[in-house]
Amino acid sequence: MTKESDCISVFAPATVANVACGFDVLGFALEHPGDEITVKKTNTKKIIITKIEGAEDLPLDADKNVVGVAIKALLQELGSDQGLEISIKKGVKPGSGIGSSAASSAGAVVAVNKLLKAGFDNTALVRFAMEGERLASGTAHADNVAPGIFGGFTLVRSYSPLDVVKLNTPKDLYCTVIHPQIEVKTSDARSVLRISLPLKKAVVQWGNVGGLVAGLFLEDYDLIGRSLEDVIVEPIRSVLIPGFDKVKFNSIQAGALGCSISGSGPSIFALSKGKATAEKVKKAMSEVYENFGIEYIVYVSKVNPNGVKEI
Amino acid sequence: MTKESDCISVFAPATVANVACGFDVLGFALEHPGDEITVKKTNTKKIIITKIEGAEDLPLDADKNVVGVAIKALLQELGSDQGLEISIKKGVKPGSGIGSSAASSAGAVVAVNKLLKAGFDNTALVRFAMEGERLASGTAHADNVAPGIFGGFTLVRSYSPLDVVKLNTPKDLYCTVIHPQIEVKTSDARSVLRISLPLKKAVVQWGNVGGLVAGLFLEDYDLIGRSLEDVIVEPIRSVLIPGFDKVKFNSIQAGALGCSISGSGPSIFALSKGKATAEKVKKAMSEVYENFGIEYIVYVSKVNPNGVKEI
Repeated sequence: MTKESDCISVFAPATVANVACGFDVLGFALEHPGDEITVKKTNTKKIIITKIEGAEDLPLDADKNVVGVAIKALLQELGSDQGLEISIKKGVKPGSGIGSSAASSAGAVVAVNKLLKAGFDNTALVRFAMEGERLASGTAHADNVAPGIFGGFTLVRSYSPLDVVKLNTPKDLYCTVIHPQIEVKTSDARSVLRISLPLKKAVVQWGNVGGLVAGLFLEDYDLIGRSLEDVIVEPIRSVLIPGFDKVKFNSIQAGALGCSISGSGPSIFALSKGKATAEKVKKAMSEVYENFGIEYIVYVSKVNPNGVKEI
Repeated sequence: MTKESDCISVFAPATVANVACGFDVLGFALEHPGDEITVKKTNTKKIIITKIEGAEDLPLDADKNVVGVAIKALLQELGSDQGLEISIKKGVKPGSGIGSSAASSAGAVVAVNKLLKAGFDNTALVRFAMEGERLASGTAHADNVAPGIFGGFTLVRSYSPLDVVKLNTPKDLYCTVIHPQIEVKTSDARSVLRISLPLKKAVVQWGNVGGLVAGLFLEDYDLIGRSLEDVIVEPIRSVLIPGFDKVKFNSIQAGALGCSISGSGPSIFALSKGKATAEKVKKAMSEVYENFGIEYIVYVSKVNPNGVKEI
């Protein structure tokens, strides 16, 4: 109950961007892991990050932290010099490829929007949170912050002007994500953007984007599965992720609808119909890194139809 | 009533392929114009085209006519040597860019499938009709025959294997198509396929494909309009169509949701919400060719949720 409160806490979920065919435009939210962000009004006119739990390497300096930058973008547009104190509990590990910076940015702007009764709509909040993404990766991409804020599956139809569409989320859709403990820097992985491609290949990709969006609305799990194919980015980026091909093969064998890189990696996600299959996929993925002797974290989560929520 | 009949007549609608952003994958059917195709069983074991009304230049030789080729593909897979006599009344002018060959191919295979109780599903029928398209343009594209057979809006998610998805058709969606009487050969216009493009541009395009598919399911006319944008093919092909920019500008001014090239042109289509707007767009488009002194034919039609139908 935040009525006239000077403090708010939110849960901001991890997110999977790209979703195989939808490089830079598609994403969805998980139920967990997530960050918890608490924002408190102060009289200092300053944005102060007091504490970051669970990822001690992240800077407390508000101008160097995605949370500070995203909040400042919001306050600037609001024309407010409200002082705020923020504490962050990171549940989404930085560098995991499931939207760590996005969870913090998204959570922060939703929290401040509510706390200050600023009245910005979700698309505006995405725009502010994208400033956090710009700080984190050098590019103001929206495919993680959009599902974080809107919940469920989102499409960033256009960046200029920003146009975010909330898609339908079939209720039996579960995600398995495995995060092998290796490092792939988002900014490095984004150098893929420099490639050019034959129109013919682009046509294959946008056929799949159309198929995935249609599959979500039709709740046609097989169509979703057939559309989870990336002929452009995955073949390039997957070579940076040891064991990728085996993880993908095992996941499909275990019954997953499809499997690809989460964001720019190194996490790998699979979508399944039903929790039981998603758990089988978890086992199948895990075996690969067990055999390789690579440490990993693995999650099973329903696709989360809701975005950041107050706690 | 075709019960035990040895003859069937069908109406096969014109279709708009590509639909701005969806090169080679999206298409929709019109209510008119269309071809009428009558197929009669004979005992000759031969496929004979007896008459083509309304486009006398088309070959009667069944091996050189899209209808003969499409029907033979069906009969071959059926393992049938049934003799057939076909007469065609062309309502869709060859070379117009609204699926003239596709209307005939689609109509023919649907008619024969029913007449012979062959039991092929729509996707199989698309595959047979594509053989007609291969004859007509050198490439077995499906973006006209798919909406012709399925009706409404269709997505060719994949060509290999062939995977056609019927999308939702919002009920107030009207199409205006203008056909300036100039010639653009489909096979010439398809040389655009040789281009390669930066990934960044492809991302814009698949954002729009996703947006258009979502807009159709959400029946969100504004989203449909925002998604009707082609940053790849239209800029290249439109230079072959005199007056294109002016027609597009006038259409949008008159209230159209969007406007682009129909198939490989020279026809130009616009989508509008409601018939009244579509009629205004018709007037706005027509003025351009009146001023240029170029002859034209213009149609206003509801987007047709049904495909080929028996008459």
